[in-house]
Amino acid sequence: MRATFMFGAGDVRVIEVPDPRIEAPTDAVIRVVRGCICGSDLHPFHSMPASETGRHMGHEAIGVVEEIGSEVRTLTKGDFVIVPFGIQDNTCVFCREGFPTSCVHGSWLSGGQGEALRLAQADGTAVKVPGVDPDTADDALLASLLTLSDVYLTGWHAAHMGRVAPGKTVTVIGDGAVGLSAVLSAREKGAERIILMGRHASRTTLGREWGATDVVSARGAEGIAEVMELTGGEGSHVVLEAVGHMPAYEQSYGVVRPGGVISRVGVPQYEDAPVGFGSLFGKNVTLTGGPAPVRAYIEAAIPEVLEGRIEPGRVFDMTVGLDGVPAGYAAMDAREALKVMIDPRA
Amino acid sequence: MRATFMFGAGDVRVIEVPDPRIEAPTDAVIRVVRGCICGSDLHPFHSMPASETGRHMGHEAIGVVEEIGSEVRTLTKGDFVIVPFGIQDNTCVFCREGFPTSCVHGSWLSGGQGEALRLAQADGTAVKVPGVDPDTADDALLASLLTLSDVYLTGWHAAHMGRVAPGKTVTVIGDGAVGLSAVLSAREKGAERIILMGRHASRTTLGREWGATDVVSARGAEGIAEVMELTGGEGSHVVLEAVGHMPAYEQSYGVVRPGGVISRVGVPQYEDAPVGFGSLFGKNVTLTGGPAPVRAYIEAAIPEVLEGRIEPGRVFDMTVGLDGVPAGYAAMDAREALKVMIDPRA
Repeated sequence: MRATFMFGAGDVRVIEVPDPRIEAPTDAVIRVVRGCICGSDLHPFHSMPASETGRHMGHEAIGVVEEIGSEVRTLTKGDFVIVPFGIQDNTCVFCREGFPTSCVHGSWLSGGQGEALRLAQADGTAVKVPGVDPDTADDALLASLLTLSDVYLTGWHAAHMGRVAPGKTVTVIGDGAVGLSAVLSAREKGAERIILMGRHASRTTLGREWGATDVVSARGAEGIAEVMELTGGEGSHVVLEAVGHMPAYEQSYGVVRPGGVISRVGVPQYEDAPVGFGSLFGKNVTLTGGPAPVRAYIEAAIPEVLEGRIEPGRVFDMTVGLDGVPAGYAAMDAREALKVMIDPRA
Repeated sequence: MRATFMFGAGDVRVIEVPDPRIEAPTDAVIRVVRGCICGSDLHPFHSMPASETGRHMGHEAIGVVEEIGSEVRTLTKGDFVIVPFGIQDNTCVFCREGFPTSCVHGSWLSGGQGEALRLAQADGTAVKVPGVDPDTADDALLASLLTLSDVYLTGWHAAHMGRVAPGKTVTVIGDGAVGLSAVLSAREKGAERIILMGRHASRTTLGREWGATDVVSARGAEGIAEVMELTGGEGSHVVLEAVGHMPAYEQSYGVVRPGGVISRVGVPQYEDAPVGFGSLFGKNVTLTGGPAPVRAYIEAAIPEVLEGRIEPGRVFDMTVGLDGVPAGYAAMDAREALKVMIDPRA
């Protein structure tokens, strides 16, 4: 079968590989109905050292169960499932506490950008979507279900950890697919005001449709000043940081108000950052966030999508077949595409 | 009158100064009944550059209102009050949101280590203690009331921001007066297990009386390993960091469990610290805390003290008159005293 591998910075290829098979009794094999390219895939796309074996790409997928291991209890061949980017048993202490991304049997999904994938901890990871036939469902519905494997629920995680609630002013930093998902999530959680910091008109337009009340295109000190002016000099109760680079972190503590929360879901491309009296401590700012424990949120989100209350799949503005995956990476990297969906049978 | 000034590292003197007087209509003059030396006073005691004018010391006090400005409405001459270390109007937006330490009219108290002090924003800052005559009250009660100006409620702030609750495992880093106050606060909030990291037997003994279920005297990697073993390899739901130095921060993220909270009240003696994938982000750790908004907690704490449910004043193990203040600094610096109370009339 065909799958996407990255062999180094800028070097993405779709190659022929052996079909995935059951390796452990808790595995399943999933035929991929839709996969996609993640903003976080662009980090290795910029910096990965050359590798002969390559990295098996794709950590977001919806698909159909093709085969199950002997210990899989909750899935049956033919089930249509969402496969989140984090693998978990969904029973360990950290899973029960709501953080399956730290599961004691956890790992990260790979293979979502191919025809099929081997899924470890299948019972704990795959979530069945009731009443949907992926072969006849419309593309928009599939796109929205696909976002529950990562991007929409990563935005949701930001809002959840940031304790977004009615009456709050929320600033979202980043107009990528996660940032826009954070806007939608903040609206779902009843934020009073949502300021979106981003400079791509096509994206901020969707952000406004999803609930952004203000858009600030300036960055750095100028962007901070604009947000402070919009909030009457008080700053934002909650900042949802969906970028991961240091300037976004600096903007975060620049616009957060005393006692406020910075919730990060952009994977930090730094280890050390300011947290002392002059940044977080002096104004009692809370810093939170991390890899989204998507599995903990999927069940509640499925009816939101199936009943049409949210359409998070609108972040996809380009669809490719497997042949088009390298071009999809290039388009996202050039910001010509917001987020690229992959239909392996297209 | 006499007051304490610091003129440089290690140079604390009690000198004659003009009596405080009303300078703004919102001021009051407070006769100090008890003041004390704060662990945070030791930072300038180690590092303050020499100064001819000196720094007026003392940010914790209980006292009696001697004089009020023309706009003071809630205080009367003769009222016995607690004066927290943060000055606030207690009406601005940040005060209403629970963070009076960020009050738009805020500043920090000084003069608590003298015979009297000028209190700005007197209505917003001083809290009356009903039914107590400071001239006849016993020393233990005065000591406990004095802790509501800073140290006990700083420990409380750590526990509050850390969301300590029944069923939680809490690790307290630091066996100083704030750390011990954090232990007591964690017990008050129903923590299931409280691990105190500290190495001074006289202090950890009080920590055990106040609810510590385990004491770990080792530090660094060894201390982290002991806490991890005590928690079955899982780590602590909440870490209350009451030191402020980088090794304590490193211990904090070493012992916190996935999805846990590090709540800092030790004033950070660093600005940058690890917050990336390898420290906080990867395991969804929340970092919170800051200067305690003591004013927001005093009213609720007064009956706890008056009715004898808590005795936070037990952190004081040395009392001096004004002549003894320099020796009090030296004793705290040498860790011969846990916390030093000042009775200006002794």
